[in-house]
Amino acid sequence: MGNLLIMKTLININGKFYQEKDAKISVFDRGFLYGDSIYEVTHTVNFVPIKLTEHLERLYSSARKMGMTFWFSKDFIIEELYKTLDSFGISECYIRIIITRGEGEIGLSPDLATKNNFIIIIKELPQNPSWWYEKGVHMIVAETKRNPIESLDPSIKSGNYLNNVLAIAEAKKQNAFDAIMLNHEGFISEGTTSNIWLVTKSGEIWTPPLKAGILEGITRKTLLKLLKDEMPDKIHEKNFKTEDLLQASEAFLTSSTKHVVPITQVNKTLVGNGQPGEISQKLLAMYQEEIKKEVQAGIWRK
Amino acid sequence: MGNLLIMKTLININGKFYQEKDAKISVFDRGFLYGDSIYEVTHTVNFVPIKLTEHLERLYSSARKMGMTFWFSKDFIIEELYKTLDSFGISECYIRIIITRGEGEIGLSPDLATKNNFIIIIKELPQNPSWWYEKGVHMIVAETKRNPIESLDPSIKSGNYLNNVLAIAEAKKQNAFDAIMLNHEGFISEGTTSNIWLVTKSGEIWTPPLKAGILEGITRKTLLKLLKDEMPDKIHEKNFKTEDLLQASEAFLTSSTKHVVPITQVNKTLVGNGQPGEISQKLLAMYQEEIKKEVQAGIWRK
Repeated sequence: MGNLLIMKTLININGKFYQEKDAKISVFDRGFLYGDSIYEVTHTVNFVPIKLTEHLERLYSSARKMGMTFWFSKDFIIEELYKTLDSFGISECYIRIIITRGEGEIGLSPDLATKNNFIIIIKELPQNPSWWYEKGVHMIVAETKRNPIESLDPSIKSGNYLNNVLAIAEAKKQNAFDAIMLNHEGFISEGTTSNIWLVTKSGEIWTPPLKAGILEGITRKTLLKLLKDEMPDKIHEKNFKTEDLLQASEAFLTSSTKHVVPITQVNKTLVGNGQPGEISQKLLAMYQEEIKKEVQAGIWRK
Repeated sequence: MGNLLIMKTLININGKFYQEKDAKISVFDRGFLYGDSIYEVTHTVNFVPIKLTEHLERLYSSARKMGMTFWFSKDFIIEELYKTLDSFGISECYIRIIITRGEGEIGLSPDLATKNNFIIIIKELPQNPSWWYEKGVHMIVAETKRNPIESLDPSIKSGNYLNNVLAIAEAKKQNAFDAIMLNHEGFISEGTTSNIWLVTKSGEIWTPPLKAGILEGITRKTLLKLLKDEMPDKIHEKNFKTEDLLQASEAFLTSSTKHVVPITQVNKTLVGNGQPGEISQKLLAMYQEEIKKEVQAGIWRK
């Protein structure tokens, strides 16, 4: 592999550092063979990994839900993360933590796994394109339906992302930014790597409930908490459909790396007046304020 | 990684040979990050890769269904497979061919992929345990439902196998051999790596249709063809439920490496008299005769 990634990267595999071209994993790793792995993504602001506590909690929740155990502790993960960030020495980074069920004799049964492989990928993170926030993005509602909870619970952040890859491929074919996925009941579930929100004409804010079959986004959780404190009557976790999105006065997506991005077009329909809405922008500011507080508090600064 | 696999192995990655401990893939490979890969498994008998034409056809069908293109031809795959088998020099091998969408900048969109990675894993294949055929196996019907066609079509043999991993984990917890998975309509779909069949008390043979959401097994296809020639009135591709399986006079599973294995217990219920049935055994003999013919014809012998 050549130097495909223009950005600087550093990879920690089981405690050892590797440059991008040398960062390799066994083809017998169950993450590679079956997607039998879990992961988390966050980023740093001024060297502080944002919402690290919440990401680690979710990592452990994913592991529990798929019966994966670790040979290391949460402190080990935190220590390795800081070792890697320190060695990298860049203030604004993308962080991906991957844990696989490990290697072993080929076969589906998790009993065959021997010992987790543990990978941290750190890379330089440029600012998100300003047009995302200034113009908003165009989403499509994909034909591909989100995996149902009974098959592969979307609340597990696992290495099985082909469902979402197929959905975003639909979006790219239509020159859209990304795809929104419906669940099997026809309700909006989530974006391929984001949560979806709308603002009704009467000013209510809706986002699908966990039972719609979604990953519990950490930006979603943070905003919900802030909004429930500030405007408890206006905020609702409830099921809605594509029609509701098309008739909304605003829509937006949230994600750990994208924060709050206005959705100004769904399929061929402009949302509201086709411009980023006031509430989306207010929530972005509110979330960025929250991050700023976290960075200032420096809980996760070493 | 130590020498986890007791059996001899040889791995071909993009045309180069590796021993087990050195057979590695980039952590930026989409097969590792997302399970964005496809694969096929077969085995050799006296150096002949069984049903290779059919496996390659299915590999291409998987690729088409997920919009994956290759930088190499089918002839390249065949040539690399033979190079690897020749170098390995063992007559009875397990063969796994894996093709990923390749490496690239981290992100779900398949547009980010640069060039497929191509892996062939060959390992020595001991005979299957004789008790599988002499006593039959105990299956459970898993709580985990098979991925629906609309989310991730089970006819794509991809690197997203966590759905099946969760199902077989249920089976192992109950000390069963493997799990049978229902689809979301409550019909039997397939085993975690096999197709499921039953024989009714009136002597009909049933197996779920493709529309139940299954991988089109090559052993299944081969047997269906033989049976449709020999006993067209008796053989039916039709939906059935757990109750039908519990009341069947025989049941069995088919797979490329296991061939025809009698199922003598489902959940806590014995199937028929709890012994391998006559028809299961007849079909195993019939399939082995078919393999023998293929080996004698030597189409795929170099």
